[in-house]
Amino acid sequence: MILTSVQNPRVKQVVKWRDRRDRDRDQKVLIEGYRALTRALAGDYPVEDVYFCPEWYQGEHEPALLERLEDAGATLYQVAPAPFARMAYRDRPEGLLGVGPQRHRGLDELPIRATPPFYLVAEQIEKPGNLGTMLRSADAAGVDGLILCDPRTDLYNPNVVRASTGNLFTMSIAEADSASTIAWLKERGIAILAASPHVKTLYTAVDMTAGVAIVVGAEQFGLSEAWMQAADVSVRLPMMGEADSLNVATATTLLLYEALRQRLERGIVQDQGPQA
Amino acid sequence: MILTSVQNPRVKQVVKWRDRRDRDRDQKVLIEGYRALTRALAGDYPVEDVYFCPEWYQGEHEPALLERLEDAGATLYQVAPAPFARMAYRDRPEGLLGVGPQRHRGLDELPIRATPPFYLVAEQIEKPGNLGTMLRSADAAGVDGLILCDPRTDLYNPNVVRASTGNLFTMSIAEADSASTIAWLKERGIAILAASPHVKTLYTAVDMTAGVAIVVGAEQFGLSEAWMQAADVSVRLPMMGEADSLNVATATTLLLYEALRQRLERGIVQDQGPQA
Repeated sequence: MILTSVQNPRVKQVVKWRDRRDRDRDQKVLIEGYRALTRALAGDYPVEDVYFCPEWYQGEHEPALLERLEDAGATLYQVAPAPFARMAYRDRPEGLLGVGPQRHRGLDELPIRATPPFYLVAEQIEKPGNLGTMLRSADAAGVDGLILCDPRTDLYNPNVVRASTGNLFTMSIAEADSASTIAWLKERGIAILAASPHVKTLYTAVDMTAGVAIVVGAEQFGLSEAWMQAADVSVRLPMMGEADSLNVATATTLLLYEALRQRLERGIVQDQGPQA
Repeated sequence: MILTSVQNPRVKQVVKWRDRRDRDRDQKVLIEGYRALTRALAGDYPVEDVYFCPEWYQGEHEPALLERLEDAGATLYQVAPAPFARMAYRDRPEGLLGVGPQRHRGLDELPIRATPPFYLVAEQIEKPGNLGTMLRSADAAGVDGLILCDPRTDLYNPNVVRASTGNLFTMSIAEADSASTIAWLKERGIAILAASPHVKTLYTAVDMTAGVAIVVGAEQFGLSEAWMQAADVSVRLPMMGEADSLNVATATTLLLYEALRQRLERGIVQDQGPQA
């Protein structure tokens, strides 16, 4: 059976989940596109339903991915092109749209690794695109987990999913308030490294090979006073031109990759080599 | 005189310039907000007209900035809140909107510095937000100039202005095709450093202290064959997680800041210290 009408109750329900209120009430997340669904599978994320529309496919691997999603427990529904375009949030739909449950985890669910711990803490991030890019970079830099403190955007916003290229579904993410997070890090002896434009020390001058949490703050106003006070070390990015700051996701990536550079150099982690 | 009607010809004209066709035909750029106009002044960019609306101001420094813009040759027009909201492209207008000419420069207009040259080449970038973020990061990393090769978005798109936080108006930017750019760099002995996920060498293992042009490619497909062939050295960013790539603007920033790290360490350039 193919869902052909925009009036179909399933179609209407998915369209409603693009709205935060409905999404949060029902605790759902929309997982759109080939890449995001591939990552959801890789992260064992429980995808419940998958809507597909072959007329919108952009490649040839969609049927194989659908088969794997079905094997993993998803129910598949074929949709006609017009209602599918209504359900999709992208301008160029890829013909694949999944629905899963939202996951909300606390600090005690974060993994504790044997290698020196490496976390990213993001406080009060406002823009979904920035949060998504930070997730993508944090995954790439090999953090053990991301801690979201007092976020001003919701983690399950479709633009977070998109900008994270689905890494939202593979990473360990905890949500907590700042006070609990500071206490949690201090108890474990994990150094708090804060970014600030007002300090003397450059980010490349600090040892990040021991346990470290890189903490970054809101787009406009940076870190709150609580985090600046709690910081074991504060570092600055050099600014050589007219700009007085970098985009927050970009700045975060520089800090994460400086830690990774030092950890690779010391042999604490191993480079995984080029892509095939 | 205050412009109070959305039917006012000046108001209607500015609204039209939000559309690329009108903007390009008249060779105009819209410069919205306090930060972008400040940068335009800092870069001696010829701002022709400035529309202002005190009801939308977010701070207290707007009148002083307007005075400086007028001194620099701009004509000021006060606008009522409703028509101003129509002219602005931001959801939260800041009450300041400038208009200036588009500038299109060639390779021969790029500055040649005494220190080892440092350029960014961006090929076929599609998304205005990415191009703007790359401009902001390139300025911060202290490049001598940006070379745009065969762009798929226009440099004067309002979202480039916004994401660049106005650094579009302070930087040296040339537009050229790839073949001319490759020839220009080779003639000057500037090494071409290309990013690719398929090579063995990590970006941190290469000396970037001599003259270098960092070359990055399109969001989806990376660099064209012409650039990969022309490259003196190709480097890779380490990827430690499930993600197989970073956002292009983020990856570009990592490469730029690795060059900056090496140049600061060798004393080729000097850190400018913390912000007041």
